Formats: sequence, C-alpha cells, structure tokens
Amino acid sequence: MDSVSGIVTLTTDFGTADGYAGAVKGVILSIAPDSRVVDLSHDVPAGDVAAGAWCLRVAAPTFPSGTVHLAVVDPGVGGGRRPVIVSRGGHLFVGPDNGLLSLARGEVDAAWTIEPDRVRVRDRVAPTFHGRDVFAPAAARLASGAAAQDFAVRMQVSALESLPLDLGWSEEGGVAVGRVVHVDRFGNLVTSLPADLLVRSCAAGGSADGRPVLAAVACYEAIPDGGVAFIEGSQGLVEISLRDGSAAKSLGLGVGAEVKIITSPGGGQ
Amino acid sequence: MDSVSGIVTLTTDFGTADGYAGAVKGVILSIAPDSRVVDLSHDVPAGDVAAGAWCLRVAAPTFPSGTVHLAVVDPGVGGGRRPVIVSRGGHLFVGPDNGLLSLARGEVDAAWTIEPDRVRVRDRVAPTFHGRDVFAPAAARLASGAAAQDFAVRMQVSALESLPLDLGWSEEGGVAVGRVVHVDRFGNLVTSLPADLLVRSCAAGGSADGRPVLAAVACYEAIPDGGVAFIEGSQGLVEISLRDGSAAKSLGLGVGAEVKIITSPGGGQ
Amino acid sequence: MDSVSGIVTLTTDFGTADGYAGAVKGVILSIAPDSRVVDLSHDVPAGDVAAGAWCLRVAAPTFPSGTVHLAVVDPGVGGGRRPVIVSRGGHLFVGPDNGLLSLARGEVDAAWTIEPDRVRVRDRVAPTFHGRDVFAPAAARLASGAAAQDFAVRMQVSALESLPLDLGWSEEGGVAVGRVVHVDRFGNLVTSLPADLLVRSCAAGGSADGRPVLAAVACYEAIPDGGVAFIEGSQGLVEISLRDGSAAKSLGLGVGAEVKIITSPGGGQ
Repeated sequence: MDSVSGIVTLTTDFGTADGYAGAVKGVILSIAPDSRVVDLSHDVPAGDVAAGAWCLRVAAPTFPSGTVHLAVVDPGVGGGRRPVIVSRGGHLFVGPDNGLLSLARGEVDAAWTIEPDRVRVRDRVAPTFHGRDVFAPAAARLASGAAAQDFAVRMQVSALESLPLDLGWSEEGGVAVGRVVHVDRFGNLVTSLPADLLVRSCAAGGSADGRPVLAAVACYEAIPDGGVAFIEGSQGLVEISLRDGSAAKSLGLGVGAEVKIITSPGGGQ
Repeated sequence: MDSVSGIVTLTTDFGTADGYAGAVKGVILSIAPDSRVVDLSHDVPAGDVAAGAWCLRVAAPTFPSGTVHLAVVDPGVGGGRRPVIVSRGGHLFVGPDNGLLSLARGEVDAAWTIEPDRVRVRDRVAPTFHGRDVFAPAAARLASGAAAQDFAVRMQVSALESLPLDLGWSEEGGVAVGRVVHVDRFGNLVTSLPADLLVRSCAAGGSADGRPVLAAVACYEAIPDGGVAFIEGSQGLVEISLRDGSAAKSLGLGVGAEVKIITSPGGGQ
Repeated sequence: MDSVSGIVTLTTDFGTADGYAGAVKGVILSIAPDSRVVDLSHDVPAGDVAAGAWCLRVAAPTFPSGTVHLAVVDPGVGGGRRPVIVSRGGHLFVGPDNGLLSLARGEVDAAWTIEPDRVRVRDRVAPTFHGRDVFAPAAARLASGAAAQDFAVRMQVSALESLPLDLGWSEEGGVAVGRVVHVDRFGNLVTSLPADLLVRSCAAGGSADGRPVLAAVACYEAIPDGGVAFIEGSQGLVEISLRDGSAAKSLGLGVGAEVKIITSPGGGQ
C-alpha cells in the first residue's frame, strides 16, 4: 500500500440505535481526525457473516485505492478467531478473520494478525466489542498512514479463513447450471452464472428449482406482468427479477436454489 | 450554477445491506475525492418514486446553494426513461426522469439529458444499476465543477416528467377542503392545506374522511388524550397528529384522504 | 470549552425516509460549511427518550473533545420543555431538556437555555420541528466556534431534567442484585451490575427474574448451547447473553428485570 486515501468505510451488523456504530466512528475520528468515515452498512443481518462479506464485495471496489474498509460482523468476538488486516486489490480490510473479508475482490497481497494490546486506546479491551477497542483503532492508524506492522504481525495469506461462496457453474447439452448466491432488498435473485451468458447465447429462458424463468430481458420494464426473467445484474452475474416486485417472494426461493439457463436452441431437451 | 458547494447528497431506495449505496459512494469519492457525500436516505420504500420525491422536497432546500442531489428510485432503470440533470432553486438534481425530481422546491432553470457513454467510468453500463454507472459519475463530476454540457445534452424543461402531487385546496362556506399528501414515520398526516389557515382562522376543528379532528393546537402536548388535532407542520402545511402515537393508524387513513377545516364560525353547517 | 472539533454528531428518532434528518444536515452545512456531520443514529424508536439517551451514552464519549452532539427525541417539541445546551465531559450537547442529554458521561460544567429567536435562520420556528429550526442552527454555530451565550442564556445545572436510569445495585449474603437497564439489537440484556464483579468473584451464576443464568464466560462462543450466561459488556457492566441469539427473547425479559449474581461460594443459600 503506497498511500492511503484517508477514507475509512464501515460495514457492521450493529444497527445504529444502540450507539455501537457511533462509538466506532468516534474512536476513528479521535485517532485520525482528518480521516473521512463513510458508512457502507450497519444493517447487515445480526451475525450474518456471509451477508456482510457480500456487502463488502459489492461496495468496496468502487472506492479509491488506499481506502481502509473496517468490517465487523463478529459472533466470535473475544474467542479464538484472529483480528486481521488484509491487503487486497489496493485496499486494506480490517476485521475478524471469520470469512467476512474473504469475498472482497482483488488478489490478497498480504495479511497481518492485529495485536490488540499494541493498538488499543482503552485500558482494557472489552471481550464483546473489538469493533470499538481493536478494529477501529487499527483502521484509524492505517488511514493515518501507519504501517500494519506497527501493531500487527505478518501472517500467511493461506491461513486466512474463507467463506464457501460458490461462483461455480457448468454447461452441458446447451444448458448452463448455477445457483442463487444472494437475494437483495428488492428480491432479485443473484446467481453464480456469468452475465455474458445472456449476451452470447440469446438465452431462451430456463428455470429456478424447476420453476420457469423467462428469456433474458434488457431491463425490468421488459419483464411481462406476472413473470420472472433473467437479466444482466450489476455484479457481472445473471439475476432473476420480477417487475415491480420480489422474485424471491414470487418464486419462494433463496440462496442455494439451482438455476438453469438454456443457452443453445434445443438445449435441455 | 455559478459555483458548487462540493456536497453530494444521496436519496435512494437501496437500503444499505446489499452494498449498492456503498458502491455509489465509492464511485463519487473516486471521481471527486474532495466532495462530501451526505446521506439523506437509503430507506425510501422500494420503487416508491413519490416517497423519494417527498424526501427530496423536505430535505434538499436546507442545503447550501450549489449542492448536488443524487436521487435514485428507479424502477424503470435501463428502459426508456431519461437520465437527467435538473437545475432548480440554486441546486442540481441528478437522477431518472420519472417524477422523482419534480417535487423539489424552486424554479427549474434548466435540464439536461445525461449521455451515459460520456460519463461512465466502467467498460459497460449495467442495465440494472445506473445509480453506480451513470448517476454517480455525473453527480461527482458536477460536484467537482464540471458543466452539465460536458456529458449531457440540454433538453426542454417542459419535457420533464412530473408527479401529480396535488397541493391544491379550496374554501367555501367557511370550510377549507384539501387532502392528505404524505404520512410520516410518526404517523402524522401531512395535508395540502396551508398552515396559515390555522393562524388566521382560529380553526374550529374539522374532519378527515368524515372522522372528527379537533381544533388546532400549538404543540403535540396540547392534544387531548385520545384525540387527533390539527397542527402547524414543518412544511408550511396543516398536519393531523395524535399525542404520543400515530394519527394515521388511529384514524385508519393515508394519502388521498379528504380533510376539512372549519375556518369561520358556523362554517360547514 | 476551549476549542471545537468541528464535528457535529446526530442522534434522532426521525428515521431517514421523510427527509427530516436530511433537512437537519442541510441546515448545519449551510451555517457551518466546514463542519463534519456524523450520524450516530436516526433509528431511535419514535419518542423513546430513554433509548436516545442510552445511544448518546454509548457513542458520545469516544469522540474528540470539543465535539457537538445534536440530539432530538422530542415528543414535547413546541411545548414547555426548554431547548438547551449542556457542556459535559469536554463535549457540548444540544437538544430538548427532557432527559435525553442526562445519561451522557462526564460532569456537567454548564448549561444554557437556547433562545430560538436569536438562533433561527427561518422567518418562523415551526412548532413541530425544532430539530431543523432551533437545534441545528445552535449546533452549527457552536461547531463554528460561537459561544453558547451568543444565543442562549446561562441556566442552573441543577434545573436540568434527568432520566431515572438506575445503575444502582447492592450486595448482601454473597449475592449481588441489580436490574436490566437496556436491551440491545442483539438481544443482550445490559444490567446495572458493574462488570468487575465478574472478574473479582469468579461469579458462580445467578438469575434474571428467577430464571437461571450461567456463570460468567469470557466470550459469546463459550456460552453452552441453549443457555444464557453472564459476560463482561462493553459499557463496563455485566450483560446477559445467548450464543447466536437473543437472550431477551429467550428469557422473555426486558428493562427492569431483576438480576442476581452469586458472588461468593454459598451465596444466596
């Protein structure tokens, strides 16, 4: 990391009403008064590490190089999981090593284990709030230009925990098969199938857990009333959407559902 | 627009958990590192253009002249609706031309249609996420001082879409008649009736869809237990409120309900 | 207050969708363009003064000295309650004098009653929105370095309203007795019992409204499946938690529940 942007983003499952997210911001601004704290989300479902990892995957890459991303969805706080710093894709990620940082984009260049006693600003690290007592001071110092090794120890990149996000898919006999990997607020079903399948194949429709999905459309407005259709999503993946409603609710499907797209004439027959 | 404030406000229906709002922020801060991104709301109900327009109406006017307001409630994304920039009341509004920008205050001075290929920073504009790929780059460049014509084409102001917010009302025989135009988080019913009706007339009470509403009170605390009353709202309009509770729920009413205020002794009899 | 940090934090029950929180931000940035506005929360439950006060208690102390904390949970807006500025613990708090500011940490050094007509920037103060019309201008001017006495009148500190947060507890016969004072988003029950009870006593377990609570654990992961246990919370207080779930829901308890910890062998027998 040659230089820092001075931006610290926050991704947590704290909500805001209890003051925990605010406490994190105060720590950062006390240590790094010139940093800019930017909320990505405090509404990650409580304890849902995979949802937090997805949020980081979607949002982090658009930030300037040298941004510090503080992420805390940390049901194992105070236990055996490591507090870490991960350098990847020109960004620094700070959080628990429970997979939360593993879906972000870019190659992992280096990783460090934070030593809480070298970074804390309180007398004692609360075993239930490393967001405030460990991760926020670490992120603030990085955003101020400190080196990770000032308060953290280099670790093997291969030792980092990762989540089982499966963006795999296969194609055989004119049918591409993947899975739903995320459901968003609008009820769009994000799949593991690459969006360019839709472009190259003029996909003729398909199915999700056996229920019919209409051929790819160019925009939500083109989806016929009452039907769900394939569409090019914003993450470079095929999504299944409903016009003015939730495809997830309409189909009764969620993460893990099998998705098939007919990619050649006569495919799947 | 002589000069810009460097502030970019955000009003969306994205929620925050999926990372979409965060992605928009990152794009803005990458293009305009010195801008200040300010959340108005990411909690506009999904697809509710009118609710987003109301949020902008309430919040935008308090910002400094030269502020850029990025607004995305955009069920027609990728379809035929235009991506636009609207200059009104000393502010710049960037978003889809679906009525979302039409309730903001101030006269419209000028409008432009954004040309996505002249403003995008990604290889390809995703048909489902113009917030990130079209509107954010446009807003960031405006906040940096670029001119709209650098990436947008002047259009007729009269061609802009508008929402049917009806702030009309009438008065006859000592009774003023209007409608509920918004229900807020607290359950206050905001009406189309101007608040100065309450001041000039010592309003004697009235009704909402036939249910009695008590005479105007000076503050929530003055509302008798169990009753709803007229009160001077913060938008210059009469509101109907309950003490420590939701008038909307108590009356079972929402947007569109007819509201009558007796403005002269003997009115309505 | 020798110098200001230029930071203005916001704690409200406005939500964001109606534009009220945004309007407050715009007023602040119009008056104090160089200030930094930081959201603590807009999700305090509507009208819940105690919840807002708790949020401030948790978040405010981590901010730099000289920070201005604007807080508005104000069911009595427009009525008899005073609009005030409170200087405590090196921070300035601006809001209604209804107890909202009374749980923040640090000694109260001074208090002032704001005179709305000396601080307002609109022609008329709306009786329903002092957040925008009174508190925001006051906070912005303080953040710009203005003195409270420029638009407020010194008042007796002893005249400030306070909330009945009872952090009292007692110990007798080897049993410490306190109460639940807050329930957070995760369902953790925060008690009035000081966390060092757990350290010094190797607490042997106890109860909450008569239901058994397991002996103190070092982290959430150490809580046996299906049980609730005492744990050192982040506020210096004992909390009662469940692993991967809500202790509040599991026990069916909330604020006010009596909590007992056996602090000596044989205690409570």
